[in-house]
Amino acid sequence: MLGYSRRDFLSAVGVSGGAGALFATMGALGLAPSAEASVKTAFDPPQPSDFSLTGRSAKKVVILGAGMAGLATAYELGKAGYDCTILEALDRVGGRNWTIRGGDRLTELNGSTQVAQFRDGVYLNAGPARLAQWMVTMDYCRELGVDLEVFTNSNAQAYIYHQNMPAPVRWRTAKADVYGYVSELLSRATDAGALDAELTTQDKERLITFLSGFGAVGNKASGFKYTGGSRRGYSVNPGAGEQAGTVLGPVPSLSEVLASGIGQRFSFEFGYDQAMLMFQPVGGMDAIPRALAGKIGRQRIRLRSTVTKITDLPDGVEVEYQDRHGRTHMIKADLCVAAMPPHLLAKTQHNLGTEIQAALSTPTVANAGKIGLEYRRRWWEIDEDIYGGITSTDLDLATIWYPSYGYGAARGLVVGYYNFGAQADAYAVLKHADRERRAVEQGMRIHGAKYRDELASSVSVAWNLQPHIEGAWVSWPSRQGAYQLLNKPAGRVYFAGDWLSHMIAWQAGALESARKVVTELHQRVLSAA
Amino acid sequence: MLGYSRRDFLSAVGVSGGAGALFATMGALGLAPSAEASVKTAFDPPQPSDFSLTGRSAKKVVILGAGMAGLATAYELGKAGYDCTILEALDRVGGRNWTIRGGDRLTELNGSTQVAQFRDGVYLNAGPARLAQWMVTMDYCRELGVDLEVFTNSNAQAYIYHQNMPAPVRWRTAKADVYGYVSELLSRATDAGALDAELTTQDKERLITFLSGFGAVGNKASGFKYTGGSRRGYSVNPGAGEQAGTVLGPVPSLSEVLASGIGQRFSFEFGYDQAMLMFQPVGGMDAIPRALAGKIGRQRIRLRSTVTKITDLPDGVEVEYQDRHGRTHMIKADLCVAAMPPHLLAKTQHNLGTEIQAALSTPTVANAGKIGLEYRRRWWEIDEDIYGGITSTDLDLATIWYPSYGYGAARGLVVGYYNFGAQADAYAVLKHADRERRAVEQGMRIHGAKYRDELASSVSVAWNLQPHIEGAWVSWPSRQGAYQLLNKPAGRVYFAGDWLSHMIAWQAGALESARKVVTELHQRVLSAA
Repeated sequence: MLGYSRRDFLSAVGVSGGAGALFATMGALGLAPSAEASVKTAFDPPQPSDFSLTGRSAKKVVILGAGMAGLATAYELGKAGYDCTILEALDRVGGRNWTIRGGDRLTELNGSTQVAQFRDGVYLNAGPARLAQWMVTMDYCRELGVDLEVFTNSNAQAYIYHQNMPAPVRWRTAKADVYGYVSELLSRATDAGALDAELTTQDKERLITFLSGFGAVGNKASGFKYTGGSRRGYSVNPGAGEQAGTVLGPVPSLSEVLASGIGQRFSFEFGYDQAMLMFQPVGGMDAIPRALAGKIGRQRIRLRSTVTKITDLPDGVEVEYQDRHGRTHMIKADLCVAAMPPHLLAKTQHNLGTEIQAALSTPTVANAGKIGLEYRRRWWEIDEDIYGGITSTDLDLATIWYPSYGYGAARGLVVGYYNFGAQADAYAVLKHADRERRAVEQGMRIHGAKYRDELASSVSVAWNLQPHIEGAWVSWPSRQGAYQLLNKPAGRVYFAGDWLSHMIAWQAGALESARKVVTELHQRVLSAA
Repeated sequence: MLGYSRRDFLSAVGVSGGAGALFATMGALGLAPSAEASVKTAFDPPQPSDFSLTGRSAKKVVILGAGMAGLATAYELGKAGYDCTILEALDRVGGRNWTIRGGDRLTELNGSTQVAQFRDGVYLNAGPARLAQWMVTMDYCRELGVDLEVFTNSNAQAYIYHQNMPAPVRWRTAKADVYGYVSELLSRATDAGALDAELTTQDKERLITFLSGFGAVGNKASGFKYTGGSRRGYSVNPGAGEQAGTVLGPVPSLSEVLASGIGQRFSFEFGYDQAMLMFQPVGGMDAIPRALAGKIGRQRIRLRSTVTKITDLPDGVEVEYQDRHGRTHMIKADLCVAAMPPHLLAKTQHNLGTEIQAALSTPTVANAGKIGLEYRRRWWEIDEDIYGGITSTDLDLATIWYPSYGYGAARGLVVGYYNFGAQADAYAVLKHADRERRAVEQGMRIHGAKYRDELASSVSVAWNLQPHIEGAWVSWPSRQGAYQLLNKPAGRVYFAGDWLSHMIAWQAGALESARKVVTELHQRVLSAA
């Protein structure tokens, strides 16, 4: 290494060859895991020594929005001593990362208001609710000391319910039946020689051996028959003494299983972003923005400060904003990072030009909705042995989520719908009481009368109606043109957010975008003439 | 109900019709969940009013063993005021439910000793480590106020490693490849008409639609080809700006996937007893026996008291035992519940007859082993994005478990092997240092040099060498004869334990067995002339 520090060496490789080269090199040095090169994007946060080495100094930066991208930008720049100020229109940090607790007030754009009545210890993560292990959000939690616990994205005990089915079935039962019949069919076809063009004799043997276990099907003599079994579950559990248990029956026919469409739910949990295990901060998702805000310093964050005008100047950026009393203020900085949703930036006065304005108006805004149903009793645990997880339906509530915290406590909160697009719009136009009524009526089809009778309180969020957010996320018609334009600074104004990443609607997208902007901005400051 | 209380009515139905009839009736009354009748075994704990109503009184009961069955017996009988005493040979309660923490001493039958060096907050559940949601153990945790968290039995980020493979693969990658090829093959066979005898035209369409999503395979024009995709994972993650991510490649051939045998690991997680979600008590599995002991009253539990003789008499039971000083004591009670392992009861002097003695010697004892490897750094999280879960191998370590607690903490404990039978025996005969060396050498094939270099301390358990336990669990040649005999009292001596249930090696088996014995014993006391 001849005088290079490990960090210098790695960062030199990183600069010339990109993240792939960096991690290949780390692997060769024995620093990366042996099983697989690291898949993470390299990031070296700015640090004070970067200035002492170059003779340059930290700049003043104004950041628009205290969502995850804005907070991460201030946090990372702050490590090197940048003088950051965040302007945030809401009275809290986090943006869509929003945990609602008892006493919290929700006001929608039309003026309607709810006040959450949840008991202590009960909360709703109204926005992001789950973290995949590979996402940088996990690393931020470690760095910030945010405690994590499993988010229960999949549960064999939860249900699948389609309206064409006589009753909900548990995921475990659905899998047993689908995998059983798939194994029966493929074993027969293989054994009959239908796949001889693609399979060697040894392949065939191995495939049939695999299917025998995968589907728990009978042997060749039985025609590889699927006839159910303990994976379906039990109608009477195995117990003591003579109680061997009674396997759940009867087994539906192959045609019934195919007609139900249950199998089409399975691929959800194979997704790179949705596969278990997933995680959540203990006590609410807003532990992350709160921790970031604490590190940044609350005095740097101006809440209830709505940006009204952005002016890019030859020597800096001027941002005009209104405070909670409607008074107008001006802040000037060397650089600006606009970490607001694009559709809100598009409504904000600025001098960044028509091409930028057109680009900001390009993405399509999507809606999403959630209702939190607080129950007086954790009937899903006590009556149905469901400790977390998600029931998937073809009702317009889409999914029912059982809580990933507070197991065995007195009360608990079920997410009664989490839906998007047209389904979310259908609930958004209703008053809260009607949203609740509709969600409960539908949920009763799965859980019966207790779903209505034991309800204690509820809160619903329609993201398109949330002031200063006005949408759940955006989508791009293409990653060319507008997307590329906004991924570069407009003069002294940078843009950041999940909407400028390939992980839209994930906090990790916002964090990666912030890191990219921080790196570019810092590089500009370090290399400025 | 004409004067019947709900409880009276239900228990009358329960008596005549068994648990199935009971729950069918509850369903009809609207007391059971709508989606599915409850699968739980009915249990009404004895209560003081049972005596006031019958004019009979609680008896004195001596319980042999403070494992889960013995503790649950004393706890449930205690609810009605029975005067219980537990004799326990070890210096702790819980039996095989054993959580090892720093400072704990392990002595094996051959006299070799280990003292755990784990830091605060690091522990090993040496025996049972996971609870299925449907098991009665969950209900005991609720009743006892034992906090629960997810036990990470499956994780898409953990590995499968077979010695015939060039490198470990993550579970998510293995599933993508196996399900991809299975879908390709079955789609082709179906489309070619190979299954026309069993599938209608509509079935075929639905099956192909399902397989398209299940395997993420191409359309008919492409030959339903599986060509990999994002479910495999990424070699460079999706990120900000232009970083769309690089999907992990190359995709192995169908023959390679079949030859690897990875697919044969999948059915583990379909098991009724192993499917996620699973749970563990916060802070260690021994929270359950500790809570039970607290409810029973520690003064009723005589630790380091080894039973040496059981004498069934016309008017009671006499039990002789040795205390920690080798002094012999005698305790007399009305009834006895022997909740010790059968192979240890078989070595204990008694007057229960030769048939009982033969029955106690009938089951076969199985061995199991575990090693807890404490690391100075949570490299599995930091380097490999693995937050919990299990790596499955065909090495003699069988499985590697990443911890389900302490995410993001400084240190952590990996279970370096959990194996049984011949594999466990192979480790049991080694000294602890050699067990550690062997486990680490093998684990390095998956995790590289850090698996050795960052190790802080370790503890290993060979269950066949644990004094007063001498095995992990037993198996029965049949559920006739000896099993049936011991499921009835021998005079005034009842037997209880997981070994007398259909859930051997599960705490729930011990608990259900205890409930059965409690019910029978209480019934006898209530109906005694």
